[in-house]
Amino acid sequence: MELRFSACVLLVLCVTWGVNGGNVLVWYTEGSHWINMKPLLEKLVDGGHRVTVLVPSASLFMNSSEPSRFHYERVESSLSIEVMEKFMEEFLHFSIYEMEHMGYVQMYLRFMELFRINLKFALGNLDGVVKSEEVMMKLKRGNFDVLLADPIMPGSELVADILGIPLVYSVRFTMAHHFERYCGQVPAPPSFVPGAMSKLTDRMDFWERVWNFIFYAVQDVYFLSGTGKPTSACELMGKADIWLIRTYWDFDFPRPLLPNFKYVGGIHCKPAKPLPKDIEEFVQSSGDAGIVIFTLGSFIRNITTEKGNMIASALAQIPQKVLWKYSGQAPETLGPNTKIFNWIPQNDLLGHPKTRAFVTHGGSNGIYEAIYHGVPMVGIPMFADQPHNLIHMKAKGVAVMLNLNSLTAEDFRDAINTVINDKSYKENAMRLSSIHHDKPLSPLDEGVFWIEFAIRNNGAKHLRVQAHELTWYQYHCLDVFAFLLALILTIVFIFIKACSFCLRKCCGRKTKTKSDKKQ
Amino acid sequence: MELRFSACVLLVLCVTWGVNGGNVLVWYTEGSHWINMKPLLEKLVDGGHRVTVLVPSASLFMNSSEPSRFHYERVESSLSIEVMEKFMEEFLHFSIYEMEHMGYVQMYLRFMELFRINLKFALGNLDGVVKSEEVMMKLKRGNFDVLLADPIMPGSELVADILGIPLVYSVRFTMAHHFERYCGQVPAPPSFVPGAMSKLTDRMDFWERVWNFIFYAVQDVYFLSGTGKPTSACELMGKADIWLIRTYWDFDFPRPLLPNFKYVGGIHCKPAKPLPKDIEEFVQSSGDAGIVIFTLGSFIRNITTEKGNMIASALAQIPQKVLWKYSGQAPETLGPNTKIFNWIPQNDLLGHPKTRAFVTHGGSNGIYEAIYHGVPMVGIPMFADQPHNLIHMKAKGVAVMLNLNSLTAEDFRDAINTVINDKSYKENAMRLSSIHHDKPLSPLDEGVFWIEFAIRNNGAKHLRVQAHELTWYQYHCLDVFAFLLALILTIVFIFIKACSFCLRKCCGRKTKTKSDKKQ
Repeated sequence: MELRFSACVLLVLCVTWGVNGGNVLVWYTEGSHWINMKPLLEKLVDGGHRVTVLVPSASLFMNSSEPSRFHYERVESSLSIEVMEKFMEEFLHFSIYEMEHMGYVQMYLRFMELFRINLKFALGNLDGVVKSEEVMMKLKRGNFDVLLADPIMPGSELVADILGIPLVYSVRFTMAHHFERYCGQVPAPPSFVPGAMSKLTDRMDFWERVWNFIFYAVQDVYFLSGTGKPTSACELMGKADIWLIRTYWDFDFPRPLLPNFKYVGGIHCKPAKPLPKDIEEFVQSSGDAGIVIFTLGSFIRNITTEKGNMIASALAQIPQKVLWKYSGQAPETLGPNTKIFNWIPQNDLLGHPKTRAFVTHGGSNGIYEAIYHGVPMVGIPMFADQPHNLIHMKAKGVAVMLNLNSLTAEDFRDAINTVINDKSYKENAMRLSSIHHDKPLSPLDEGVFWIEFAIRNNGAKHLRVQAHELTWYQYHCLDVFAFLLALILTIVFIFIKACSFCLRKCCGRKTKTKSDKKQ
Repeated sequence: MELRFSACVLLVLCVTWGVNGGNVLVWYTEGSHWINMKPLLEKLVDGGHRVTVLVPSASLFMNSSEPSRFHYERVESSLSIEVMEKFMEEFLHFSIYEMEHMGYVQMYLRFMELFRINLKFALGNLDGVVKSEEVMMKLKRGNFDVLLADPIMPGSELVADILGIPLVYSVRFTMAHHFERYCGQVPAPPSFVPGAMSKLTDRMDFWERVWNFIFYAVQDVYFLSGTGKPTSACELMGKADIWLIRTYWDFDFPRPLLPNFKYVGGIHCKPAKPLPKDIEEFVQSSGDAGIVIFTLGSFIRNITTEKGNMIASALAQIPQKVLWKYSGQAPETLGPNTKIFNWIPQNDLLGHPKTRAFVTHGGSNGIYEAIYHGVPMVGIPMFADQPHNLIHMKAKGVAVMLNLNSLTAEDFRDAINTVINDKSYKENAMRLSSIHHDKPLSPLDEGVFWIEFAIRNNGAKHLRVQAHELTWYQYHCLDVFAFLLALILTIVFIFIKACSFCLRKCCGRKTKTKSDKKQ
């Protein structure tokens, strides 16, 4: 039989080569990470793939009982929901109230303590998968084509390895980019790549570069020494075929990347839909002044009465109408221009032509929606990646940043007025929005493309750098340095010895001759 | 007036936002670089752009008098075509015949001598642009939106800077990636990124890493010391908005890149068209055995009688029919299965289902056509990047490499039989072909997208890494290292001094007390 092959056939294949009926396994995750994963899964289901999501019994955010187009696979966790909720509250309290009154070392130690508890919980969930014969048998029989995971919940790499299937990560970032650097092998020179969570930008003066360097070093020492055997976990993580990174150059500072790192920031963003009638009426009543959207995210349900009054009195002083997402009691100082809502259609409001500003805690999902729609921001960061996110937005000239603990009504009011009246904020927001949209592929299409690529080609080995096979001293050429240095020193040594030998011979002979003559 | 803006509008803008009527200025280039530039320009003209190409009077390959859809702008060069042709002959003779009999240092010195002559010629052409008031006036009045250039011909960066317009490079590579690394700031750890032309792959043992390290170092020392003031030229090159790199991971080894480096290898490839009748008849006469395509490129017009006979006798021994592109006299030993052609439709033949193997000198354009169509290769490299290209193909398991000077008929015959009969070569060729085609965008579409992006956005500043603003010692954190080392040494010094002071105090007092007691 003749092997017939031509480019035309290949091209047609590529165009029509949707992988229908791919079998996608999804690792459990939590909070905004799950919100970010869902649009990708919806799109995969749209494309005819079967999506199976692992859900631990103690999940706070994943609800396997709600009607869904995904197939949920329940994993028994050794933890209870109550324990998880208590830990979450403890973490929030530390982040919002305690952290600020702590010294740096004390804060770091407490953070690491919480981090260790979190890791223990994560391993509790992982046991529910790998130590359960029933679950592992189901997974092996499931004939999955790819495992999709956010590495914030560890263990997916182990299961992908056991099942022998490609692994695609969806990652926001890890602390100081540790896992991207050590396991993913992405280069990150501390001189112009600010460590994630370092609160630095890519424009650093000498002292900031010193701080960035130390920040990287501390994280690396902690991870490489403190977590038992990170090497084997890192090796498994390094086998990930594709890293979908949930930022882009509209949000992040440009930096070196690798061929298997795909930047898909704003993967959940979508055009605005019409508003519910009552909200649209309130928005329209704002006239030319327009509206301000105010939310502190889903974790913060209410704040102290004092703070509430301060915020409300500031909002009362601006000419815009304000939609405030808040589930606490209405503050006494609430102005007639401000309306409190239990829930708001945030994306649809951000895409509304009357929207002038977005007051946000700085969660990455909300920020990306503001970038998508080109809305300037006032940021009041609380915890986790929120300060990090808002520092990026401030550096790009689209946000003013405030501190909730030391905030005054005047500062708050002035900040909102600034981002609305100083035209540069809107211009910069529009520029970021243009960068976000002016791409060959939407983030969602790009993410789906590379997941399907991994299914079609059983991974993406051709994108994997050889750096994975090198030790750290080989990677940095330290062995080569050492060899060349030794070689040069040896040559210099032999040269000096030879010279001194010759000199001694000559001088010795001279001296001898002289003494001969004297004799 | 209300500033109305919504995501829907933005999305629609993006989809329909073709830049019609962009005004593209194209820098002159030569040989295969011009062949590679043309498809991009054709596509730009298709998209409604006006394309103006600068052509020096002493160009060997660009023909401004042939009918074309581009507007040609003639540049008077101080050189004559005869001088250029003589130099080209000299260079070819050195590369194919002299080089092999030279010692490494002699070869390097001769190469650098030729390189300097080439640079002198290039600067002669450049004078025809920047020192001609007439040309510069025309360019300034031309209102160009972007300058597109292959940096193999220097000076485009200067003219883009004078005109104040964005610069897009189309680059194959520069020696040891010097300009990409120094001017483009792309990271290239010598431990796993083989220097271009080093004849290494990404899998290097210790000695190869030593060699790669030295290879980079020698180039860097040469460029940084030998070419006068490279800094200012490099600074201008560093302003390039986009670097279109004419490789991809089907050809190159995966390596770190930057957000403004776009890999568009195979930009000139296209599906096969039907063959002329006489050629199709000859191809069909091959039956199940199929055909072999043999060409040594456009530079080599004929070879010695001896070599010709050796090659022909080898070809006569294989069961395939052979199409040999050759303009010399037919060798005596020519077999009945071999037909000599003055010209062959190479791409259409490579895409023909009867094609079994491609015998090539290893020019990058031919290799990419073979990758595109999935054809195994036998490589006989001559000069320039040809050995480099074929080493890549050999490493990826799709080619056998031979040396023309030491070639025997048996080796040649065996090599062709190997790539045809050992199935792994065809499988690997098909795998590379699949990698080439299975991309979100074709190389041509990607190239055009980023040129149009630069036109739409007056460059691509958001993709530019901050590394451009750092000195080399800042980039590598050497100042931070030095500071931290000094700090640590100072602390250690003070600590030792303090300890020794305390010890002396204590011991001193003890001694005193003892002597007191004695007294």
